[in-house]
Amino acid sequence: MPTPLRLGLAGLGTVGIGVVRIVQKHADLIAARAGRPVVITAVSARDRTKNRDADLSGYAWEDDPVALAQRDDVDVFVEVMGGHDGPAKAATEAALAADKDIVTANKALLAHHGQNLAETAEAAGRVIRFEAAVAGGIPVIKALTEGLAANQMRRVMGVMNGTCNYILTRMQNAGLPYETVFEEARQLGYLEADPNLDVGGIDAGHKLSLLAAIAFGTKVSFDKVELEGIGNVSIEDIRMADEMGYHIKLLGVAQMTGRGLEQRMTPCLVPAESPLGQLQGGTNMVVLEGDSVGQIVLRGPGAGEGPTASAVMADVIDIARGLRLPTFGRPAASLVEAVPARSATPAPYYLRMTLLDKPGALAKVATCIGEAGISIDQMRQINQPGEADDKAIVLIVTHKAAPADIAHALASFPATGVVVGSPVAIRIEEV
Amino acid sequence: MPTPLRLGLAGLGTVGIGVVRIVQKHADLIAARAGRPVVITAVSARDRTKNRDADLSGYAWEDDPVALAQRDDVDVFVEVMGGHDGPAKAATEAALAADKDIVTANKALLAHHGQNLAETAEAAGRVIRFEAAVAGGIPVIKALTEGLAANQMRRVMGVMNGTCNYILTRMQNAGLPYETVFEEARQLGYLEADPNLDVGGIDAGHKLSLLAAIAFGTKVSFDKVELEGIGNVSIEDIRMADEMGYHIKLLGVAQMTGRGLEQRMTPCLVPAESPLGQLQGGTNMVVLEGDSVGQIVLRGPGAGEGPTASAVMADVIDIARGLRLPTFGRPAASLVEAVPARSATPAPYYLRMTLLDKPGALAKVATCIGEAGISIDQMRQINQPGEADDKAIVLIVTHKAAPADIAHALASFPATGVVVGSPVAIRIEEV
Repeated sequence: MPTPLRLGLAGLGTVGIGVVRIVQKHADLIAARAGRPVVITAVSARDRTKNRDADLSGYAWEDDPVALAQRDDVDVFVEVMGGHDGPAKAATEAALAADKDIVTANKALLAHHGQNLAETAEAAGRVIRFEAAVAGGIPVIKALTEGLAANQMRRVMGVMNGTCNYILTRMQNAGLPYETVFEEARQLGYLEADPNLDVGGIDAGHKLSLLAAIAFGTKVSFDKVELEGIGNVSIEDIRMADEMGYHIKLLGVAQMTGRGLEQRMTPCLVPAESPLGQLQGGTNMVVLEGDSVGQIVLRGPGAGEGPTASAVMADVIDIARGLRLPTFGRPAASLVEAVPARSATPAPYYLRMTLLDKPGALAKVATCIGEAGISIDQMRQINQPGEADDKAIVLIVTHKAAPADIAHALASFPATGVVVGSPVAIRIEEV
Repeated sequence: MPTPLRLGLAGLGTVGIGVVRIVQKHADLIAARAGRPVVITAVSARDRTKNRDADLSGYAWEDDPVALAQRDDVDVFVEVMGGHDGPAKAATEAALAADKDIVTANKALLAHHGQNLAETAEAAGRVIRFEAAVAGGIPVIKALTEGLAANQMRRVMGVMNGTCNYILTRMQNAGLPYETVFEEARQLGYLEADPNLDVGGIDAGHKLSLLAAIAFGTKVSFDKVELEGIGNVSIEDIRMADEMGYHIKLLGVAQMTGRGLEQRMTPCLVPAESPLGQLQGGTNMVVLEGDSVGQIVLRGPGAGEGPTASAVMADVIDIARGLRLPTFGRPAASLVEAVPARSATPAPYYLRMTLLDKPGALAKVATCIGEAGISIDQMRQINQPGEADDKAIVLIVTHKAAPADIAHALASFPATGVVVGSPVAIRIEEV
């Protein structure tokens, strides 16, 4: 009988209970696949008295996750508490100091402290695995770190925050404004305690920064991600983009360019008929592009008890099977500092503006755009019901243009005297 | 300096040359990720004199792949020759006997001899890896064996033969009959030397049988796959299915039922707007459904030099990194004999038939269908230009029905005296 692998489980929220359920339900299946039994020996959470609808009677209890991390009967410290500082960080560090391997679902922790933790783990001969931290049940860390390991990666992209995608698709499908759907999402319990983690793009930005580190061999640099949440996405733009054949998604893109590493997590337009454009609700999608493989697209549930626990347990089974990789797929000490590059990769842009409805107005705007070196692919004037007669809404889709040129064109609009208010410019990503 | 991992490469066709290119181009990247250099020491192919547009001068040459497999300077035997018997089998067996690990792209070999080879390898402490054998560049073997290892799998499905998907989408997009597009595909070099491997569904069936073994812990049972190729898919059905909102795909489905293991590789209708329905050309898509994770969809290039070599090298890098798993994800000796079950899982069906255009004809057919216990979801009569006035084409989409009930209904049609020729019945898979 081979030695069981013993888990100390810190956190008994949705994901933690999901892990308990899988370990209990699939003990035989996991032992067959892992080559040895996997057991939970001890657990920890804030409130012992809470009713959790799972049988925890066989497990030792620790009030303090640090104490859990240091127990002699724990081989792998499973951290599903969350939070990038405080107990999660302290307990993870304690676990490494006590020679435990780590499995975590905590993207914030790794986005902020991944380099330090990886260096500490590798110096101690321990592993840190985090499949559940990115895109829920989709085995994307494995696909990128192992499945595409022979590729020089060109680009990684993804819709990786289910709550934002829920809000955007619900706005689109029901024609409701952001504020209304945000409130719905809050009442459905879809939002983090600090909603800005979701709608501000921070959670998705954490995930993107982890994928970029693996893809490009750079130190995690979450602080260099260009972040823009979905709070300014208007129902007007969702509707107008749809008219032009596009949907709006909170899309992360990381790519290595000659100038450095571009990382952005921003609302983008994507073709309505594309796989990304068709992504509904809480589903996640990640696109991985490598020089040999071309493009791989992975789609699946981005959150929830079962999918996230499935990813946690995949990491546990990898450890049980003896797979021991550096945290980011190559030694932490060899990861290089990312040179951040402001987005300069050209893309088509969607522009929406309100013009005074008088002769020559459109020509003036078109001239500004042309003088910025940008050519126009489509232009459409919309008669908005309820809009005053003396104004017109104009939608423009440009050909590929550098972000700086778009900014230049926008800056030249006020001088025309025909553009009312602030024009909207949103990047179009072609997948 | 860590010890290099030394490859013996048998086969210098498209995939073999792709492997050479990656090893040469990405030596540093691979060494960084694998933790040790990966080198080719010796190669083998049928014709040494062929111009291969790659520098092979640094490698020893063997005319005989068996000799290559036995070389002392080879750690991993990379088999990209193909063929389920003959040299590929002999050389793979010789490599195992000589204590080499195996990386192969050969689905036919594993579909026919996977169980024996896995047992031999595991008895000798060697590994056999075959990511490139299924769905080209998509890391689906890894996703299933490792990424979803904590799941009881419910179903695996996929479009896994790019040539068939090319033919079907080309028929659809250009409105051309099967024979014409088949000939085009032949001239483009898309077909195997024995085209029946592709269009007969055999190649895709091989792949499905390998996925099923991993998913359900059963011995590979390719001979139990219900196989139907695309040779009988008519342009009429492609057109009519489209009218009803469906596309026709050669779709593999494996699922474990109470009665045993269903494995089928047959033309199916899928919703035109679904990810499977939108799959164009040579792209592959695999759908993995597990009890915790729900549904994961993977899409990517199913063939070609770069993608297939990417998969081969991912396996090589896994071995370099020390990952050692049983061939099918659990010990070969523990795999159970699959109890094959004829398809009995109910599904909606598409029916196309020609009826004599006389009063009561439709009612007679509807009665047959009702008496078989099947209810009708949609029915449509098509006026086919050029069809004689006294006949009408009728399309029916049923609600979910057992295959046996569909067969029963079809068998009762002749007695009505109004059905002309043989009706067509195609299963609709809802993804």
